[in-house]
Amino acid sequence: MKIINGSVCAPRGFLAQGVEAGIKKIDKKEVAIIYSTEPCTAAGVFTSNKVRAACIDYNKACLADSTARAIVANSGNANACTGEQGIKDSQRMADLTGELLGIEGSDVLVGSTGVIGVFMPMEKVEKGIRKAAAALSRDGEHNAAQAIMTTDLTSKELAIEIEIKGKPVRIGGIAKGSGMIHPNMATMLAFITTDAAIDSKCLQKMVKAAADRSFNMISVDRDTSTNDMLVVLANALAGNPLIDVEGSEDYLLLQEALDFLCISLAKMIARDGEGATRLIEVQVVNAADYEEARQIARSITASNLTKAAVFGEDANWGRILAAAGYSGADFDPGRVDIYLGQEKMAENGMGLIFNEERARQELKQDPVLIKVDLKSGKEQATAWGCDLSYDYVRINAAYRT
Amino acid sequence: MKIINGSVCAPRGFLAQGVEAGIKKIDKKEVAIIYSTEPCTAAGVFTSNKVRAACIDYNKACLADSTARAIVANSGNANACTGEQGIKDSQRMADLTGELLGIEGSDVLVGSTGVIGVFMPMEKVEKGIRKAAAALSRDGEHNAAQAIMTTDLTSKELAIEIEIKGKPVRIGGIAKGSGMIHPNMATMLAFITTDAAIDSKCLQKMVKAAADRSFNMISVDRDTSTNDMLVVLANALAGNPLIDVEGSEDYLLLQEALDFLCISLAKMIARDGEGATRLIEVQVVNAADYEEARQIARSITASNLTKAAVFGEDANWGRILAAAGYSGADFDPGRVDIYLGQEKMAENGMGLIFNEERARQELKQDPVLIKVDLKSGKEQATAWGCDLSYDYVRINAAYRT
Repeated sequence: MKIINGSVCAPRGFLAQGVEAGIKKIDKKEVAIIYSTEPCTAAGVFTSNKVRAACIDYNKACLADSTARAIVANSGNANACTGEQGIKDSQRMADLTGELLGIEGSDVLVGSTGVIGVFMPMEKVEKGIRKAAAALSRDGEHNAAQAIMTTDLTSKELAIEIEIKGKPVRIGGIAKGSGMIHPNMATMLAFITTDAAIDSKCLQKMVKAAADRSFNMISVDRDTSTNDMLVVLANALAGNPLIDVEGSEDYLLLQEALDFLCISLAKMIARDGEGATRLIEVQVVNAADYEEARQIARSITASNLTKAAVFGEDANWGRILAAAGYSGADFDPGRVDIYLGQEKMAENGMGLIFNEERARQELKQDPVLIKVDLKSGKEQATAWGCDLSYDYVRINAAYRT
Repeated sequence: MKIINGSVCAPRGFLAQGVEAGIKKIDKKEVAIIYSTEPCTAAGVFTSNKVRAACIDYNKACLADSTARAIVANSGNANACTGEQGIKDSQRMADLTGELLGIEGSDVLVGSTGVIGVFMPMEKVEKGIRKAAAALSRDGEHNAAQAIMTTDLTSKELAIEIEIKGKPVRIGGIAKGSGMIHPNMATMLAFITTDAAIDSKCLQKMVKAAADRSFNMISVDRDTSTNDMLVVLANALAGNPLIDVEGSEDYLLLQEALDFLCISLAKMIARDGEGATRLIEVQVVNAADYEEARQIARSITASNLTKAAVFGEDANWGRILAAAGYSGADFDPGRVDIYLGQEKMAENGMGLIFNEERARQELKQDPVLIKVDLKSGKEQATAWGCDLSYDYVRINAAYRT
């Protein structure tokens, strides 16, 4: 597996673009299109929030046939809590994109992100779609990555290449997310392309597994969004033998690559969490049960007290253990060891005398590594979060534009 | 029901005191004793965190016989994650207090609050216990309330009087809590006394019900503590006919009074949440199911995004609805109305054009009132929280003393 240049246009047969459309008050790109020259097998996972954006329900219906060929997305407006009008607007975005690209509207997926509860400024959105569709290119992928940003400080892009039966297979992805990040099925807009040949059943299974290990393991503020989505388009241009057996050698190769890509993008989102100064990685090891390891790791990354302690460079392992304790997981606190980077802070649930200066140095790292050893089995899980700083409050206490 | 002067010594037969013991680096009171001249029926509810302070397990064992006569408590050290030594220290606190008061050590309950994972400075604690025991008095109750404070800015005290079959019955309570507040059985140290005559089964039932409507409905930072406890001592000095039938007229009178007291103390804790500038009250009305109303109300009060929006006086009802959406409750977002004080912000899950100036005025109130109308039934629940300010980060990013 190797990292290669680019993102969603690194796999063969994909074009993209991102453009300004005047949706936000400031000069930023707001409309993106990703397009495959060939038909694709498609799969996605979506937010579990009961309050869902119009595009979420639209995409679920659209993916009933497991095919798609394009994605159109906008930032600046989430199209959530917008009722019937919102549904019409998502449909219109897909139809217009399809018309301009010469494909069915039902082969276009829709993503929106931004303010909740305001109707879409469709005139501007349509203008943006026309502009983006006219300018699709391989190097438009960076603009596309920028066009889905909201409070993000950096765009999130990555592409990798693996070899399956002698054929180079590429996977690329872009993602966004900075606040309202505590995904519980997928995350706030992640679009992934691949030229792998894979059937729809295997693809859906693989996407769900990758999401559970990546986007579903990050938290910025414990607020699960109304718009989370991860969608993958696979156009088969790599020419590898069709992957149609779950758990086969080729399946596992592709799963490993997809996991790596999703985890990398997810970590970029957590690192760029609103106000964050550092990424926090929490490894829970030697657990009796995978689900419990997962619960504990997520609970720690979501704890305001732990996040504030990391911001303040305070080696407060008691808050870490307390967050494990209320996670809902069943474990024996009297067996738990806690490490901060290389420094062991607690053993068998009790504090050790540790080197404060070394602990503080570990807290200055990016990422900060927290390891929780349950000494009860062989399962493990890793979650990612970020620290809680004054800037998180500043960003979210201000009226947004 | 009327509010009367004082707190835990307002009911007949109770004495208390709080003293300095040198546990904290600053000059503050740290050890409290509450004592009943007569034997009491006692009941309590405790944290559901898997990681529990030594005193929690001690108290549960101690309450097996449903009797107690005194409470000894300290601030500055939580005696949590302290292993065998911690258990010995809780036991020693009880035994020494019993010895000094001439009662069994097994009739003394123990509460601790402060830093996790550090052994108790027992020499100082014992000195404090001796000092407090020697100075017990009726007006020592205010000192006792102060001695259990940590990052609290205000002490929390209240007493009320009701009449049962012509006999005045009094209930008084003190509480503390400011950070690590998201109780899930009880809360960080609440001690309540009453001179009501009530049997142990009725008392335990009543305390659990009151906790579920009060302390279990507040959140400061979604971090459930290792030390939460609510204990009630009832010494029967009021001379009312013994309450021994659940649901009887007298039972309901006392339950109403206990609910009022617990809700009042719980609101004081939320209002004094670390860094808080305002109390937030969330009422979920016309729900089909009480548990779901409760889940939604708690989810909104715990949402960092909603809390930061209140701090910033931003009428962001989308965050409120999103927090309801991920609460786990089953409801129809398309029926939901949301009010900010008197101002209706959203109807049937969609935004209304509202008066921004009036909305902003509602956000300047203390408490800020948020009402979520599900229009689906007759159940309702109320939860309390506070806003998320820069000071929450400052307080928790700094090393604590």
